[in-house]
Parts: sequence; C-alpha cells; structure tokens
Amino acid sequence: MTTQPRLVEVRARILKENDVLARQLRERFRQAGVCVVSFVSSPGSGKTTFLEKMLAQLGARHRIAALVGDLATENDAARLGRACAQVRQITTGTICHLDAKMVAAALEDWRLEELDFLFIENVGNLVCPSSYDLGEQVRVVLLSVTEGEDKPLKYPTIFNTADVALITKMDLAAAAEFDLEAARHSILSVRPGMRILEVSAKTGQGMAEVGGWIESLRAG
Amino acid sequence: MTTQPRLVEVRARILKENDVLARQLRERFRQAGVCVVSFVSSPGSGKTTFLEKMLAQLGARHRIAALVGDLATENDAARLGRACAQVRQITTGTICHLDAKMVAAALEDWRLEELDFLFIENVGNLVCPSSYDLGEQVRVVLLSVTEGEDKPLKYPTIFNTADVALITKMDLAAAAEFDLEAARHSILSVRPGMRILEVSAKTGQGMAEVGGWIESLRAG
Repeated sequence: MTTQPRLVEVRARILKENDVLARQLRERFRQAGVCVVSFVSSPGSGKTTFLEKMLAQLGARHRIAALVGDLATENDAARLGRACAQVRQITTGTICHLDAKMVAAALEDWRLEELDFLFIENVGNLVCPSSYDLGEQVRVVLLSVTEGEDKPLKYPTIFNTADVALITKMDLAAAAEFDLEAARHSILSVRPGMRILEVSAKTGQGMAEVGGWIESLRAG
Repeated sequence: MTTQPRLVEVRARILKENDVLARQLRERFRQAGVCVVSFVSSPGSGKTTFLEKMLAQLGARHRIAALVGDLATENDAARLGRACAQVRQITTGTICHLDAKMVAAALEDWRLEELDFLFIENVGNLVCPSSYDLGEQVRVVLLSVTEGEDKPLKYPTIFNTADVALITKMDLAAAAEFDLEAARHSILSVRPGMRILEVSAKTGQGMAEVGGWIESLRAG
C-alpha cells in the first residue's frame, strides 16, 4: 500500500514526541517525590475494582490520586472518587490508549508535591497502550483468571513493557478452571523473571502483599 | 501537537482505502455465495472456544472456513483446525486489528465458492477493530459475563458497528455476580434494538439458538 511508509514515518514521529514528553513527566514526578504506577489490561480485567480496594487500603497512610482513562463515561472516576482519592477522568473519545500529552494535560493544575502516589488506569486494551510511555515509575499489567492462560503469548508486547503482572479475580479461578502454572509459564516465557502477584479484590486475597509492594516502591 | 492534522489525514486515507477494499471483498463474497460473519471482543471473551464449538455444531451440515487474527502465536488456528474447518491464522505483529487487506491476502488462494460460511475472528480488542470494515455480512460482538455490565457504555463504537451481541460464559454468571438486565440495558442504550443472545460454549446453553441464527443468515 502506497501510504504505508508515510504512516510509519508519522507514527514514529508521534512516538518520539511522546517519549520526549514522557521523560519530562518522569522528571517532574521525581522532583515532586510522587511515585507513579500505571495499570493496563484488557477491558474487564478488574483494574477499577482493584484500584478502589487499594485506595481504601492505602488511603489512610498515604496521599494518593488517580487518573483514569476511558473512551467514554466517567463511571470509573465516580467509583474511585468514593474511595476518597483525588481523581480525574481522561475521556479519550475513539483513542485506544492514554499518551503522555493526555496525562500532562490532566495534571496541569495539580500540586504533585502534595502526593505520595499517583495511580494511572489506562484504557482497557492489551495492544496499543504498550507503545506509549506515560512517565510512570512502574507499569503493572493485569490478567484476570477468566481470560485464559495464553494471553501473554498472544499479547507479548504489553507484558514486555510492564514491570509486574497481577493475576486478578483469583476468587473465580476454580469456576474458570484457571491453570495458574500455565499462566505463570506464559508470562515468564515472554518476560523471564517477571514478578507475578495473585489477587482477588473481592475476597482480599493477596491485596496486603500487593499493597506492601506498592508502598515499597516509594521507600526504595 | 503539530503532527496531529497530518496523522488524521493519513489515517482518513488509509480508512478510505480499507473501505474500498472491503466493498470489493463483500462483492466477492456475495458472488461466491459465502456468508461471512466476523467476531470481535476483548481478549479472553471466549471467541475461539465459541467458534470451536460452533464449527463442530455446524460443520456436518455446512462447508465452513475460518480466519483468525492474533498479534502472535498460531494457537487459535491449531484449536479451530481440530474442529475440521479450513483455517488460516493472520499474525498481525504489533497491529491491533485486522483490516480488509489482511483478509484479502489470506484468502487469495482460497476457492470461496466451495464454502457456505467464513468466520473471521478479529484480534482481541474492543477499540481499534471498530474502524475497519472487513467486508463481512454480519459483525458479532462478544461480551463475557466476567467483564462487567458497563463495557458497552465504555466502548460504544464497537457495539455500534456490530449487528448482534453475544453474551458469553453464561456458566460463570452466578460466580461473577453478573447482572444480565444491566448488561442488556447498557447494550441497548448504545445500540437500541440490538439483538442480544446469551451463550455458554462450556455448557452448551444458547448454542443451538445461535447456530440456528447463523444458519438463517445464509437462508435469508
């Protein structure tokens, strides 16, 4: 197709601009002393429920804010707002991912130095967010037990660009006949040595461990 | 951002080229007398399992082939191949959707007039595939009970471009505390009048009805 080289060229330029802006964001976060953790997964893997519970768990000891990305609706901001964090929704329209520019715009009037943590919930998508650095310190990819153990093999890039994998909805593992060892094998075959944590936001399984790990990010 | 207008321009041109090619495909399918149904959903909504069972169910009475899209792996083609259909995997690399050109290339040496049905399984993604017409006669969007009832509100475009919604994994509805009426309400509020069918590929619930509906597409 004759347009292909031009598209690649434009896409490369946009990604470069994103990387430059993400580096600026990362430096701004560092200077403000805020630890920024982003969360990415398929639609419906439980990002918002996990964050609701985690905000409630850590909110008493830390000053936490959240940015949440979605194509449409402000439902997630409303849900996280109930957990008492400072929350802003980024509504992307038809854009399938957050980028550094959207994050910078959403944070423009925030006083980052008053925060300990900023959580960024990306649009539900296992493909496109992998290309966009948001300036985060740590990227967490969520995989729910109902999605199938092979998803890391099918969406390797997102697992490769993430630092930690959270296996979510462990309460449904038996009903979904989830094979934890097969899932761990899939994750580790695309990202050897990746840290894998298992949680159920519903029953609380693993939430203390994940909370402790998040707190350690700031200490470290 | 200075690149924005140029990106939009290039994207619009690519979409236009896709639409032209999709129209040619649609005409080719019509002339060959093959009914083409595409399936799109989040990763892990159960597209492949549904298709495995549906191919087994309809395969004795109809000549069926399938194209399956994934970023990486040929797992799905291997799974569907066991159900005795002619199958080809389209491996997209980092591309987040199928387009008409990929479909045309994959079908190049196929004798479509020897087929009754062609099923196309898109890449698991609720955002990007919505922009790409594949020349299909009917587009089916799948929503599994574990993803949450609000997903149609959050990903309205994909539901708007689909003709029928399949609610999958109904066997997990109770464990996931799925609210069927809320999900139906979400779907119908973004696409009034949309046909909604409920299935479990695991227990067989609803599969005969969906199979009958697919067969009726060819009769009609």
